[in-house]
Amino acid sequence: MKNIKLAYIGGGSKMWARVFMNDLAVTPGMCGEIALYDIDKPAAERNKKIGERINADSRTVSKWNYVVYDKLEDALKGADFVACSILPATFEEMHADVHFPEKYGIYQSVGDTVGPGGVLRAMRTVPIYEGFARAIAEVCPKAWIINFTNPMTICTKTLYDVFPQVKAFGCCHEVFHAQEFLSCVAHEELGIPRPDRHEISIDASGINHFTWITQARYKGTDLLELLPSFMEKHFEKGYSESVNGGAHDFHGDPFRYGNKVKMDLFRRYGALAAAGDRHLVEFLDNSRYLKDPKTAEKWLFGLTTVDYRKKQQAERIKESDMLASGQKPVEVERSDEEATVLMQALLGKGKVVSNVNIPNRGQMPDMPLGVVVETNCVFDDDSVKPVVANPLPLAVRNLVYQNAMNIETCYHGIKERNMDEIFASFINQPLMAGLPVDKAHALFKEMVGATKPYLKDYYNLKGYE
Amino acid sequence: MKNIKLAYIGGGSKMWARVFMNDLAVTPGMCGEIALYDIDKPAAERNKKIGERINADSRTVSKWNYVVYDKLEDALKGADFVACSILPATFEEMHADVHFPEKYGIYQSVGDTVGPGGVLRAMRTVPIYEGFARAIAEVCPKAWIINFTNPMTICTKTLYDVFPQVKAFGCCHEVFHAQEFLSCVAHEELGIPRPDRHEISIDASGINHFTWITQARYKGTDLLELLPSFMEKHFEKGYSESVNGGAHDFHGDPFRYGNKVKMDLFRRYGALAAAGDRHLVEFLDNSRYLKDPKTAEKWLFGLTTVDYRKKQQAERIKESDMLASGQKPVEVERSDEEATVLMQALLGKGKVVSNVNIPNRGQMPDMPLGVVVETNCVFDDDSVKPVVANPLPLAVRNLVYQNAMNIETCYHGIKERNMDEIFASFINQPLMAGLPVDKAHALFKEMVGATKPYLKDYYNLKGYE
Amino acid sequence: MKNIKLAYIGGGSKMWARVFMNDLAVTPGMCGEIALYDIDKPAAERNKKIGERINADSRTVSKWNYVVYDKLEDALKGADFVACSILPATFEEMHADVHFPEKYGIYQSVGDTVGPGGVLRAMRTVPIYEGFARAIAEVCPKAWIINFTNPMTICTKTLYDVFPQVKAFGCCHEVFHAQEFLSCVAHEELGIPRPDRHEISIDASGINHFTWITQARYKGTDLLELLPSFMEKHFEKGYSESVNGGAHDFHGDPFRYGNKVKMDLFRRYGALAAAGDRHLVEFLDNSRYLKDPKTAEKWLFGLTTVDYRKKQQAERIKESDMLASGQKPVEVERSDEEATVLMQALLGKGKVVSNVNIPNRGQMPDMPLGVVVETNCVFDDDSVKPVVANPLPLAVRNLVYQNAMNIETCYHGIKERNMDEIFASFINQPLMAGLPVDKAHALFKEMVGATKPYLKDYYNLKGYE
Amino acid sequence: MKNIKLAYIGGGSKMWARVFMNDLAVTPGMCGEIALYDIDKPAAERNKKIGERINADSRTVSKWNYVVYDKLEDALKGADFVACSILPATFEEMHADVHFPEKYGIYQSVGDTVGPGGVLRAMRTVPIYEGFARAIAEVCPKAWIINFTNPMTICTKTLYDVFPQVKAFGCCHEVFHAQEFLSCVAHEELGIPRPDRHEISIDASGINHFTWITQARYKGTDLLELLPSFMEKHFEKGYSESVNGGAHDFHGDPFRYGNKVKMDLFRRYGALAAAGDRHLVEFLDNSRYLKDPKTAEKWLFGLTTVDYRKKQQAERIKESDMLASGQKPVEVERSDEEATVLMQALLGKGKVVSNVNIPNRGQMPDMPLGVVVETNCVFDDDSVKPVVANPLPLAVRNLVYQNAMNIETCYHGIKERNMDEIFASFINQPLMAGLPVDKAHALFKEMVGATKPYLKDYYNLKGYE
Repeated sequence: MKNIKLAYIGGGSKMWARVFMNDLAVTPGMCGEIALYDIDKPAAERNKKIGERINADSRTVSKWNYVVYDKLEDALKGADFVACSILPATFEEMHADVHFPEKYGIYQSVGDTVGPGGVLRAMRTVPIYEGFARAIAEVCPKAWIINFTNPMTICTKTLYDVFPQVKAFGCCHEVFHAQEFLSCVAHEELGIPRPDRHEISIDASGINHFTWITQARYKGTDLLELLPSFMEKHFEKGYSESVNGGAHDFHGDPFRYGNKVKMDLFRRYGALAAAGDRHLVEFLDNSRYLKDPKTAEKWLFGLTTVDYRKKQQAERIKESDMLASGQKPVEVERSDEEATVLMQALLGKGKVVSNVNIPNRGQMPDMPLGVVVETNCVFDDDSVKPVVANPLPLAVRNLVYQNAMNIETCYHGIKERNMDEIFASFINQPLMAGLPVDKAHALFKEMVGATKPYLKDYYNLKGYE
Repeated sequence: MKNIKLAYIGGGSKMWARVFMNDLAVTPGMCGEIALYDIDKPAAERNKKIGERINADSRTVSKWNYVVYDKLEDALKGADFVACSILPATFEEMHADVHFPEKYGIYQSVGDTVGPGGVLRAMRTVPIYEGFARAIAEVCPKAWIINFTNPMTICTKTLYDVFPQVKAFGCCHEVFHAQEFLSCVAHEELGIPRPDRHEISIDASGINHFTWITQARYKGTDLLELLPSFMEKHFEKGYSESVNGGAHDFHGDPFRYGNKVKMDLFRRYGALAAAGDRHLVEFLDNSRYLKDPKTAEKWLFGLTTVDYRKKQQAERIKESDMLASGQKPVEVERSDEEATVLMQALLGKGKVVSNVNIPNRGQMPDMPLGVVVETNCVFDDDSVKPVVANPLPLAVRNLVYQNAMNIETCYHGIKERNMDEIFASFINQPLMAGLPVDKAHALFKEMVGATKPYLKDYYNLKGYE
Repeated sequence: MKNIKLAYIGGGSKMWARVFMNDLAVTPGMCGEIALYDIDKPAAERNKKIGERINADSRTVSKWNYVVYDKLEDALKGADFVACSILPATFEEMHADVHFPEKYGIYQSVGDTVGPGGVLRAMRTVPIYEGFARAIAEVCPKAWIINFTNPMTICTKTLYDVFPQVKAFGCCHEVFHAQEFLSCVAHEELGIPRPDRHEISIDASGINHFTWITQARYKGTDLLELLPSFMEKHFEKGYSESVNGGAHDFHGDPFRYGNKVKMDLFRRYGALAAAGDRHLVEFLDNSRYLKDPKTAEKWLFGLTTVDYRKKQQAERIKESDMLASGQKPVEVERSDEEATVLMQALLGKGKVVSNVNIPNRGQMPDMPLGVVVETNCVFDDDSVKPVVANPLPLAVRNLVYQNAMNIETCYHGIKERNMDEIFASFINQPLMAGLPVDKAHALFKEMVGATKPYLKDYYNLKGYE
Repeated sequence: MKNIKLAYIGGGSKMWARVFMNDLAVTPGMCGEIALYDIDKPAAERNKKIGERINADSRTVSKWNYVVYDKLEDALKGADFVACSILPATFEEMHADVHFPEKYGIYQSVGDTVGPGGVLRAMRTVPIYEGFARAIAEVCPKAWIINFTNPMTICTKTLYDVFPQVKAFGCCHEVFHAQEFLSCVAHEELGIPRPDRHEISIDASGINHFTWITQARYKGTDLLELLPSFMEKHFEKGYSESVNGGAHDFHGDPFRYGNKVKMDLFRRYGALAAAGDRHLVEFLDNSRYLKDPKTAEKWLFGLTTVDYRKKQQAERIKESDMLASGQKPVEVERSDEEATVLMQALLGKGKVVSNVNIPNRGQMPDMPLGVVVETNCVFDDDSVKPVVANPLPLAVRNLVYQNAMNIETCYHGIKERNMDEIFASFINQPLMAGLPVDKAHALFKEMVGATKPYLKDYYNLKGYE
């Protein structure tokens, strides 16, 4: 039984903390301390209580000692792992990120990765992550850092740029959905029961939320060759892996999508995009799929409003309270998230291959070194080694490069606190296609204004007030 | 006196041939044969006559033997230099290239480099250049090839891709205009007489018609530092180096522009674009400067219609006829073109530094090797060696890369005769931002249809008829 | 049960064939045809008989249909896998490779990889492999090619250079020995039972027979940190993993070694060489460890004479005859070789990580792309994907690069049939340090002369007769 | 007339200062201050006096104000240019560098660049240059730094590594001699008067003192094609460009050589080494040309003893005294050195192409970025831009890479003050081929001991006393 300490930054998380605590509870061979740290300390306290309820559950295999800390450095001290999952600022700021651009005709389906919302979110997040990186460098330089915060690419970049020896990687489950989608394809085209997603071997590469699958096989069968036939049947009405079929009524759930964008992109580029359609469209010229809500509807994906997120969060807090107080029983079962699986591999309990985000050091030879990319990696005893990915089709490579370099420009501008360079990346976002410079600048100013309390300590906002 | 043979492919050129023959006439130290080859043989014959009139002129220093050939191979045989300057197809096809997209709201100021027109022109040109490359490889593999044909990047790429040992470079005078513009800046800001453009030292790099100046100096003075003050005065009304000042009335001349785009880009990116504004705007999201004719007018550049080109050509033919017949006297004087200067350097008469287009072999370390780029090169005895360029600002580098990779995708699709890949590059053109896929495909089909006689021998046009 | 065809080039192998057939026999889930092809057809027939005896054994899980072919193309037809394991020419030529240089004071411990013997062997092997590559390209382009022939690097290079789409990799077990050595270290330093080598996680990279381990761990413990203490105890008398300890008397077995070279190199460079000492020393200036037989003895490794190999082979043939005829019972048990394990992974039966030789496409970012390197790779359903290796220490990287580039020069010279370039690589071999140019040339001439019948069809040997 | 300040570090130079002051005196268009700084202040004072005598000479075109400074920072303050030309430690230490290895059978012809002497000299020089770099960064970050000190590569590396924005380049005249040699070839083979070396166009690349000429032309004629015929005649007896012919008696002058090594290398590699033979041989396995003094004699180059250098220096000091006191008249005439020519180009008085040493940023695409290489560069108004060099033949590229990486390893070890890593580079020097590790270590220890006073402040010499 390995005794470890895991520091959880953002340990007051409303949803993901529960999932993670459950996964830890059912993972054999590890135990120790979960150090919860959150600027919302009561939320961390609540999760501690939920954790203790999980400990008390009969299905629990590994019990953990949940401790809430006031200071980041104390939480990090002696940590073997650090999980980072924060919301930079509040949903009020995210509201500006997502909805202010709409006045200018710019729509976003998510708004936390790229596009105008992604840039503003990055402006708030990078200075916070610079602080995390410095604290890790000082307090627990040998710990493994697992990042879950968006914008994923830029958070991971910050950690490595500030502290090059950091042992960090960014986890995202979007690619799992693509495996599920391929599992449906195998089911339907091969006439077999739907396989477990882990049996679908893929080579995926790109940048977070804009990854592409260049190879997909199931026990010796090439699944990409089956796609044209599958798409013939399903393109028109869409197909959702989460409902095993046609995808007509999404109005109630802004997180769902019919893979119609994915299928359309496959037909054009011969590679299957791995992220969900809601994410993909934000990396492309907005006239294609995200021109306006009606176009989005036609392409069968939802626009996630921040009001929806607020409502959802309120429900989750309510549920957390009930779990913490025992009004509602905890559900101790393994999720589809991979964090605990990767932790075990890092502790020397066997190799695992999974796709995560780390700086390019050869895994995408056509991309500049140092750019954070998402590819398969081999997780092994104290090591994460990227696997060299297949080359992307030229046209796809160009789209990925263009977005990766926008992110690099944005990061560089933020790092240098250079508002002009940040704006250069803002206006070069594919989602901003169609907006004249003067209007783009007006929008930028409005958005900066809306999130000013979180920026003023870091940037010279003269001219933005 | 060096005795050489220069083969002139497209030797029936209506305008550029005259300029070149004049330059040759006033260049000392070289003589020999000019082998004219053109599918329009009478035009070549007419140029031969003009050449002979130039020979007879008293200002002529070097006389040349003008010979018209029926066959390309005969013209190339024994050539030391090959100049290529052709119009792929006719102005009828160019009319489709430039004006068909307008029905879909896509405007082009030139239409021969990138954008929808550039793609179609490339489809016609590459197969022709493949033939040139094969003929050169067989008949005159050691000759220096000087390309003037657009799309410049893709023509140069074809030569090197088909015959990797080719000694080719692409010449374009756009950067000279930027030097003239900087000469005006020096004049106005330093209070000195306008310097000769050759005295303005620059470092320019990028791809043809989308090059950027990262350093510009005049006798120890940094000219880029003077730009903000200069622009303060001239941004509003524009400034044309060709009229030494404000640039209000361009309606008569669709080739002129007020450098307002260039000044706007400088303010955003801190680098001075080197090509003319008409060209620059075609590499950028069309909503910025090329949304429609009114926007173009606001930004002080003209849209060159093909009707204008036809009219202009008719006048040039008329003038050529008069020069050939002696009704009009020839003007033997040196132009600002550099081809003859570069030829002399290649013959071992001293080093010259000039910007030309060749495949990247290190001169732009941030761009993939093999991509055709435009940078300074040292011309010396039988050698053209690229000079390593300053890095471009990140945001500019991204724009250049994105366009360069669109061109690579386009070339690759054409080389493989793969209509889907060509369309992938077509739809990814920045000028196509804002056009939905189905409309883009309809436009592509219309454009292919209009230029079909020049494509059908090379491409499988099933579905495009 | 997957039905496959495996073509075995060099299917008359005296030793390795038996091992492989046994491994196939105990591997569940695969069956089909083993197509034996060998220029020594009786040897192939003999192996077919042994194979059939194995089929008849009660321990056999999977039976295979053994077929002997007269023509390479017939053996390859329809193959899913191709195993290549040949001896280029005979032991007579190998005698010249290994022992002629001794007259000039150049000793070799193996003589089949680099050094003068490696160059001559490459000269004989590459033309043969060019033929294999062309046949594979035509007959079974989608088959997986498993190479076992030395010189490994140059054989693999030839396959990819002649047929870039080839799906080939080179397998070598040298790294396994290093894992065994580390297993001994874990045993002794941690006071635990000797772990299975598969439990030792390593990151190894370099070129075949000159690979280096930059990371080695056993269930969370860093083994490289234990080496200094281990070496303190064992450096003087050496330590052999095959006898679990001190290594004093090797005179009878020229394949054994005491890891004293490996320990010496670790002390100097901080990285553990992964190949056996006999191989390592051939990549280094011969004055270090291979100055003469006495020096080799001092460093506790043997020089494998070709006479020994001949004797060994005669015994093996005798044994094969007895196995084929049933005079001796077959031993059906799994070996430590990994070929069948990798085949299963390629057939989609689960991921495996193992170190093999393929061209660099990013896995060693400090080495030129295209150079054949040995690193960890992920074997998965129809794919071999290299894992990006840790950077080597600068001084080691230089040694690896230098040898890799000698091999590239050698290959390039052979490919171009350019005797001068081959000699340039010959004289630049580290083992040739100390030999003046004229003597080196005399040696080269003698060695070429000795193996002339195998060279004359490919090279212009004027001046070498 | 441009008014500038040039700081001269090592301004007490016995020989080169005079040459430089003369060149400055006859260079029109520049004037100002020469700030002399030297730890041997009287030597600087003496040069000041010589400078003033030059000022007084009638042939002097530009007069300079010579000022001697006590403090480096004062000398640097306001400098536009900084010339660095120092002797690290004294000839006593250089005696150990050059002659201690002889006891171990290791001979050196120069001993200041690579080989055991080069490593020790680097150990003394790098800490000094780190100080220079820090002072320049603080006091005159925009000045152009011209380095003349050996080891050239490692001095230049230090400046850029400590202060990445430094505008530094390293000047060496070795390539000029190769041009002179080629001038002799042109003279003899073409039957023309010996051309001026500036008329010989070359492409040279590599690392300092180990550069290679891949192209050499004289007014349209390929000189490399003439070499075989020239060498046929001169290989046996050698040929020295400095005496226009046969080179039999060098015993009096250890700086001369007969180019026999150069001719031998050309025959093997097809590329002409550009540095003098004395330098070249130090980059190659010592058994080739530098086995012992007799071998050197056979190859027609001299071993420069430090006694000779001491004697030569004493004469130069005597001569300087006489020049300073007026006992001997100054000789005001232009030398063949290019420093003043390059300075003029940097001041905006026209482009110059010359070969200098700067970090690789694309000019040698086959070498790692950041390694200091010597290639042609374009000197222009405030800029030095490298020209992309022809690729070297594979075998030569390997030799260059190997030496460049030894230097990188050496530099890295010195930077990190890591004696083990320094020794790893020491033992990997080609000149050390043939020396067993234990003897190499004994030699290293002796050499470190001999130069200890200059090392002890920087390195942990425990175990070296």
